[in-house]
Amino acid sequence: MRILVVNVNTTDSMTRAIAAQARAVAAVETEIIGLTPRFGAESCEGNFESYLAALAVMDAVQHYPHPFDAVVQAGYGEHGREGLQELLDVPVVDITEAAASTAMFLGHKYSVITSLDRAVPLIEDRLRLAGLLQRCASIRASGLGVLELEEHPERAIDAIAAQAVLAVEQDKAEVIILGCGGMSGLRERVSQRTGVPIVDGVAAAVTIAESLVRLGLTTSKVRTYAPPRPKQVSGWPTFFTDHAGK
Amino acid sequence: MRILVVNVNTTDSMTRAIAAQARAVAAVETEIIGLTPRFGAESCEGNFESYLAALAVMDAVQHYPHPFDAVVQAGYGEHGREGLQELLDVPVVDITEAAASTAMFLGHKYSVITSLDRAVPLIEDRLRLAGLLQRCASIRASGLGVLELEEHPERAIDAIAAQAVLAVEQDKAEVIILGCGGMSGLRERVSQRTGVPIVDGVAAAVTIAESLVRLGLTTSKVRTYAPPRPKQVSGWPTFFTDHAGK
Amino acid sequence: MRILVVNVNTTDSMTRAIAAQARAVAAVETEIIGLTPRFGAESCEGNFESYLAALAVMDAVQHYPHPFDAVVQAGYGEHGREGLQELLDVPVVDITEAAASTAMFLGHKYSVITSLDRAVPLIEDRLRLAGLLQRCASIRASGLGVLELEEHPERAIDAIAAQAVLAVEQDKAEVIILGCGGMSGLRERVSQRTGVPIVDGVAAAVTIAESLVRLGLTTSKVRTYAPPRPKQVSGWPTFFTDHAGK
Amino acid sequence: MRILVVNVNTTDSMTRAIAAQARAVAAVETEIIGLTPRFGAESCEGNFESYLAALAVMDAVQHYPHPFDAVVQAGYGEHGREGLQELLDVPVVDITEAAASTAMFLGHKYSVITSLDRAVPLIEDRLRLAGLLQRCASIRASGLGVLELEEHPERAIDAIAAQAVLAVEQDKAEVIILGCGGMSGLRERVSQRTGVPIVDGVAAAVTIAESLVRLGLTTSKVRTYAPPRPKQVSGWPTFFTDHAGK
Amino acid sequence: MRILVVNVNTTDSMTRAIAAQARAVAAVETEIIGLTPRFGAESCEGNFESYLAALAVMDAVQHYPHPFDAVVQAGYGEHGREGLQELLDVPVVDITEAAASTAMFLGHKYSVITSLDRAVPLIEDRLRLAGLLQRCASIRASGLGVLELEEHPERAIDAIAAQAVLAVEQDKAEVIILGCGGMSGLRERVSQRTGVPIVDGVAAAVTIAESLVRLGLTTSKVRTYAPPRPKQVSGWPTFFTDHAGK
Amino acid sequence: MRILVVNVNTTDSMTRAIAAQARAVAAVETEIIGLTPRFGAESCEGNFESYLAALAVMDAVQHYPHPFDAVVQAGYGEHGREGLQELLDVPVVDITEAAASTAMFLGHKYSVITSLDRAVPLIEDRLRLAGLLQRCASIRASGLGVLELEEHPERAIDAIAAQAVLAVEQDKAEVIILGCGGMSGLRERVSQRTGVPIVDGVAAAVTIAESLVRLGLTTSKVRTYAPPRPKQVSGWPTFFTDHAGK
Repeated sequence: MRILVVNVNTTDSMTRAIAAQARAVAAVETEIIGLTPRFGAESCEGNFESYLAALAVMDAVQHYPHPFDAVVQAGYGEHGREGLQELLDVPVVDITEAAASTAMFLGHKYSVITSLDRAVPLIEDRLRLAGLLQRCASIRASGLGVLELEEHPERAIDAIAAQAVLAVEQDKAEVIILGCGGMSGLRERVSQRTGVPIVDGVAAAVTIAESLVRLGLTTSKVRTYAPPRPKQVSGWPTFFTDHAGK
Repeated sequence: MRILVVNVNTTDSMTRAIAAQARAVAAVETEIIGLTPRFGAESCEGNFESYLAALAVMDAVQHYPHPFDAVVQAGYGEHGREGLQELLDVPVVDITEAAASTAMFLGHKYSVITSLDRAVPLIEDRLRLAGLLQRCASIRASGLGVLELEEHPERAIDAIAAQAVLAVEQDKAEVIILGCGGMSGLRERVSQRTGVPIVDGVAAAVTIAESLVRLGLTTSKVRTYAPPRPKQVSGWPTFFTDHAGK
Repeated sequence: MRILVVNVNTTDSMTRAIAAQARAVAAVETEIIGLTPRFGAESCEGNFESYLAALAVMDAVQHYPHPFDAVVQAGYGEHGREGLQELLDVPVVDITEAAASTAMFLGHKYSVITSLDRAVPLIEDRLRLAGLLQRCASIRASGLGVLELEEHPERAIDAIAAQAVLAVEQDKAEVIILGCGGMSGLRERVSQRTGVPIVDGVAAAVTIAESLVRLGLTTSKVRTYAPPRPKQVSGWPTFFTDHAGK
Repeated sequence: MRILVVNVNTTDSMTRAIAAQARAVAAVETEIIGLTPRFGAESCEGNFESYLAALAVMDAVQHYPHPFDAVVQAGYGEHGREGLQELLDVPVVDITEAAASTAMFLGHKYSVITSLDRAVPLIEDRLRLAGLLQRCASIRASGLGVLELEEHPERAIDAIAAQAVLAVEQDKAEVIILGCGGMSGLRERVSQRTGVPIVDGVAAAVTIAESLVRLGLTTSKVRTYAPPRPKQVSGWPTFFTDHAGK
Repeated sequence: MRILVVNVNTTDSMTRAIAAQARAVAAVETEIIGLTPRFGAESCEGNFESYLAALAVMDAVQHYPHPFDAVVQAGYGEHGREGLQELLDVPVVDITEAAASTAMFLGHKYSVITSLDRAVPLIEDRLRLAGLLQRCASIRASGLGVLELEEHPERAIDAIAAQAVLAVEQDKAEVIILGCGGMSGLRERVSQRTGVPIVDGVAAAVTIAESLVRLGLTTSKVRTYAPPRPKQVSGWPTFFTDHAGK
Repeated sequence: MRILVVNVNTTDSMTRAIAAQARAVAAVETEIIGLTPRFGAESCEGNFESYLAALAVMDAVQHYPHPFDAVVQAGYGEHGREGLQELLDVPVVDITEAAASTAMFLGHKYSVITSLDRAVPLIEDRLRLAGLLQRCASIRASGLGVLELEEHPERAIDAIAAQAVLAVEQDKAEVIILGCGGMSGLRERVSQRTGVPIVDGVAAAVTIAESLVRLGLTTSKVRTYAPPRPKQVSGWPTFFTDHAGK
């Protein structure tokens, strides 16, 4: 089974970290392919960048030249999953939803710890649309940007663990979600500090994608995620194909 | 006052129709500029096309060379408004929200009549995020595609009015929203058939945009819609600038 | 166009202040008529007074001797708007809903700063019924009564700004609504202290009323707001007509 | 124990019917006093009449010359209960809420059968505010006006039973509420036709009022229902006292 | 009228205290029978114990040898009420729902003060299912276990009153519910400390049960609470009959 | 990895069918152990039987003599999962939640097709508590009892497929959940008739349980699912151990 794990930003080192995290939990027979978008921002921390990422992820998947069995969109709180579901016949799993869905099997309420305060409403919006907000105790910001989280793991752990402890004690969370692709890998350290299960979205999404494939299930095509109707589209995919990248 | 009214698809005749509808309600001192995206689909009827439109609208607005006072995003149920709000200092009004917001001043419940069944969940999602779903009695599809609505106004009126009547009688709607940019202009005819107020999103959005400008109000910049952080972005805007359009 | 802006209490100076605020944003061709109820309380700070105001506003509008195009009910969180909608064919705009509806175009979440703590549940109830509560971050009380707000503008600004800052920082509001008719006019000063858009309900309502008139839209009469059925009513309007006032 | 059961309209025969229904379930030591408002409509079937009733009920209770232990507001879906709670120290029970609260002890979902279609949104609004809407399967109209229900009991039973059967079979209601003061007394006959428990609001409210008195519980005065602040009120109660009635 | 008041744990002294509390509010003609389960935990403070109690209460009621008119399940936040409703033709009232339902007649929002923090989510779950959560301001834990509450009434009063004051001041509760069977009897003392109405679930439930009987209302049998279908059941009731209890 | 798949009724043939379904999707290295409760009903179709099953499942798991890595509770819409989570350190997955959680990755809305109409409210309750109801389009009953579904697979397929088609066409479901343990195995046949993905709860739960084990995640023990406090429990487990099951 081959799963594409697609980063939402253009930072290669993050793609590598995400793919490593995915491989660490994937079944031995699963091949993990990490993809970096050909355009977009070096980190996604807002709506403009997130919409750009939505298209960039679709572009990256469309241009992957080999067959694959499932796609994981590895940006926490980002746009675009619905578009991918229209374009593809294989299952698409967004890490925002995968993490929440997984956390809900582990405790009565969960909290998300993300990067910056400005990302909080985006995550709230994604969870609301996904119908997964009811059991969300809180979404808290560590105060560190996406790239800072990657560059300074010790500061990241301190900042995340501090917010996680507040989520457990004040907001009554029983499970913590690491709400940023760049946090993959900090799970164990944060878990030691908080005493509650810590869910990483990439890891959760990979196992869900594997399960869907194993169960022979994929996106329903009867309505919302039916393939785009045949029509004239300018700038896509030809446009990106011809001009993007290099 | 200058308001950009941005179509979400690449069909020029629709842009003209939308702009005409906008001008019909705008104050005499308001200049309406209709913009057609440089890339995207000829009509938006799904998530992929909608995400493409999100970016195309941002691109169109970014490349408009003159100052302006507000932007109306003239696609019903489409993505992207949040991104525009980050990029701009002037108010941004989405017609989906403008229409619902307006309808709620006119009756206890409203219904939306849109193009195809597959657009219904997208509209539901937008209204849910906007916090405007509680008083929505139903979202019904006319069964005609966006371009069919434009090309066959008589059939469009029949199909829309038929669903509107059902919405009023069965779903208990008291106000009907024309849930597609391509329906602008059918308002009077549908109103005669149903006996309830008919809200057109473009018209509603233009008056709201004018009002916000007049009130000296614009998008809050403290959190969700703060300008994007300075960072390296590839493919935007340079990429689109250099290669798109021709 | 003539718009009646109806105060909910019997304090003339407040009617004048509200009308001035309305005129400051109205189009030049709009005539603003401020009306003071013939009976009721000198300020509305609870349910009894609010129900009295509901009737007093209907009475005031019914006895206005000239034609008019729209009505603004200028009490924040008060009862009665639904009754006016039944009695009139022209649009009726309540400032509670106008402010919330406007704020939602400007930020992800809004907060309301009102007069006394006891008014908070009334406002919450109005917003819940209006279907506008989802994006309300909080409703906070300044601790000053309605008349105190009017008499001591400096203390009012301090008290309101203090709560507004808490709303932005703690409750994550991105827009602030001045939740009391008596606060009209403090907008600019409070805005300077908080850095977020400040919405005044009277100003918002006037532009919405103008827009509805311009769009040719008025209250749906098919169900909730159909005219009262012909029946014997004692004490209204004859009763009020004959005995009230002086 | 003395309980005031206050009709919301000015039709004496309805007051008598309501009081009889109340007496039929009251404890032997409970004295039921039926009150008819001194002003208002002969039946309440809309918002204007309901707001008038709100004040008329407060007026009627304020002018009752003897002590009493509780008040039942006997109009289904009407305004005003919150105002009475401010004015009084004894418990106030609205029949809309009493019926729903009682029905929820008897089945998983309940439906309300009311008079006219136009009353449905008012009832929905009351139940939403009361926080009792979640388990409401539907609110259905019998199509008969309030006075028709009183004058033509056989037709009323047929019309109500027909809707009740639909509520049970289609909407999955397990309990039916008679959603109109004028329906008191039809309970047994409708029950035979439907096979589910039928709740009458007046009967339910009387037992709840008795219980609250017996438990020594009354309205909380710390916030929402604190007594009106001392202030100048014109037209109330002097105004009504001096001029109303006869 | 005979009402069974069933404790959820095996501690006889608590059964006696609960029954005394019930008798204190019951009508003179009502006979209160306190039942202690034949198996289960000495106190219920979690889901396992609560599920055990669910069955133990059904067992206790099934083995009560005399006729009865209603059942009160006297455990706050416990499972099982739905099962009893299936097995019995008489009304069943759970104290969790009885207390919330009663509190909602007394103030705009209520809070629950329970025993341990771990009981909070169970209570939240019961109120959510019952459709009574909307007006719940908070559920707070006193920090004392069920048996501690019984053994140390002074400490209990202090701990409960402290949380009740916070609920009123910070969470804006206007009514307090004593959320634990073991708190029956502390009502008056806590009330003095807080100035708001205090609702005890057992007392509330007894008056509701009496009212339902008096109104001739009992559980609807058309769907959710229809009697169990005839089928082979092992271990119940024979099993418990033969082997339980000693 | 060893996963206990616990039937909720005492019918051995159903346990075998469920275990077979589990094995069909389990990883090769996963050992599936099917457990049949030692007491309870031959099928669960109501609250009494469901509460009995809750305890019977806990009993069955507690008496399983070997180590295991996860538990699947294989009854659709049944009580008890929370109790198991308290008693165990390994993950517990309920098929009701597993199926909904899985369906939500495949389409915008899902419907559940269950056995009898009376089971619908139980399932609705479980999904509401789980926070998974928002995207549920409907819960429909096939009209066949649990054992009938098992005994007459052809009739079962017809009845289920008929309701599934209605769910897709009328309720706008895009995914169908087989809402009864006894339906495991009909997935492929029903899928052919409807054209949408069909989710079987047992299969979904097994893959989720495997994933949680692989991710090193288990139930949070900080609050809701902390182990029961040390206390005297009569009748459990000693009681069941000594006397139950022959």
